Amino acid sequence: MYPAQGNGLLRAQISSKQRVDYPLTVDAFPPNTKPAPKLWFKPRDLLVSSAVPVYVSQRFFLEILMSKVDFYRSLVGQISGLTDGEPDLIANLSNVSALLNLSLDDLNWVGFYLLSNENELVLGPFQGKPACIRIPVGKGVCGTAVATGKTQRVADVHAFPGHIACDGASNSEIVLPVYSQGKIVAVLDIDSPLFNRFDEEDEVGLEQVVAALENFSWNR
Amino acid sequence: MYPAQGNGLLRAQISSKQRVDYPLTVDAFPPNTKPAPKLWFKPRDLLVSSAVPVYVSQRFFLEILMSKVDFYRSLVGQISGLTDGEPDLIANLSNVSALLNLSLDDLNWVGFYLLSNENELVLGPFQGKPACIRIPVGKGVCGTAVATGKTQRVADVHAFPGHIACDGASNSEIVLPVYSQGKIVAVLDIDSPLFNRFDEEDEVGLEQVVAALENFSWNR
Repeated sequence: MYPAQGNGLLRAQISSKQRVDYPLTVDAFPPNTKPAPKLWFKPRDLLVSSAVPVYVSQRFFLEILMSKVDFYRSLVGQISGLTDGEPDLIANLSNVSALLNLSLDDLNWVGFYLLSNENELVLGPFQGKPACIRIPVGKGVCGTAVATGKTQRVADVHAFPGHIACDGASNSEIVLPVYSQGKIVAVLDIDSPLFNRFDEEDEVGLEQVVAALENFSWNR
Repeated sequence: MYPAQGNGLLRAQISSKQRVDYPLTVDAFPPNTKPAPKLWFKPRDLLVSSAVPVYVSQRFFLEILMSKVDFYRSLVGQISGLTDGEPDLIANLSNVSALLNLSLDDLNWVGFYLLSNENELVLGPFQGKPACIRIPVGKGVCGTAVATGKTQRVADVHAFPGHIACDGASNSEIVLPVYSQGKIVAVLDIDSPLFNRFDEEDEVGLEQVVAALENFSWNR
């Protein structure tokens, strides 16, 4: 029923809405092996854990359904691949913003504010519409993330005291402090037009994302 | 037939495909004045020259049809408004990339490569998919713009010798060297999925755009 060998597609459900198809070649496919051994369905550019469920849906398709945990693990792997060995902070933050924008559903703004001194955040690389340039520490969701040192996950930004409306399309937001050598150096700011876009699993996953940025060359 | 006063909309055709509606208040509207005096149809955030044709299309609408020349003049004005008095180079380049992405039709990538030394360009802020980080001077469209010191307007990137394919969606491209104090400090790189997206008027207009960046704080 299944091919012993041939060319096919791996269809990965990489998040709740986004599917990606990867071409792949099956060298030898024993139909009774479920799930199919890792080697045969893992293309180089998709990092998945062995715990990901695999479904052989038809002759030329393998489907992978990822949990959010797997999704963020894969995202951290992609960030490492994109930035490994590159010392330029701005290039790395620009590419990471682009990757997050490409990978996460239902965003209208994603990017970085850099801590320029202990009192102020300054706009860094991002994807989205033009944004506020300077935000005092303690003000709005970004400034609060720095002042408290903790992730701010806000289901409805309009209910957040002192919210700074950079893009009127934003309804929910998550802001994560980025630490390097024990100090906050920046925040990752992500806005969504949906209310309550970010759940606890997103928060945990995105904290792994910002942890992967710790060794960037933050001292420009 | 037309209101002496009231609330309405200004509908501006800001480029070939993009329309923007601005709410406006008409204080006193003499129906026989064509075009209506500038004061009445110019909202603060839209800079238009007095040469722009104005059409009064119905009771509550005023329409402005802009030429490409007017469009780029307006864009340069918006860039000045967005960056005036802000010394942070990265914040300014991030916002300018976002503004260009918002304002120009049919782009898949727009942003900056910064000249890190005389031999190499390094990725700066952009909008689009993750991109190549380092480009040697002389290589590809960006590297050629630096080596020649001149704008490269490429109708079909696949026909350009040594083209570096960062995003497979790109079919045409324009790259403009950014000069500051007589030296090249960066390039503005704009990619389109359409063939022949950029004409001579775009080239002239975008050269005015990069000229507006000359006084940024390029010496980081």
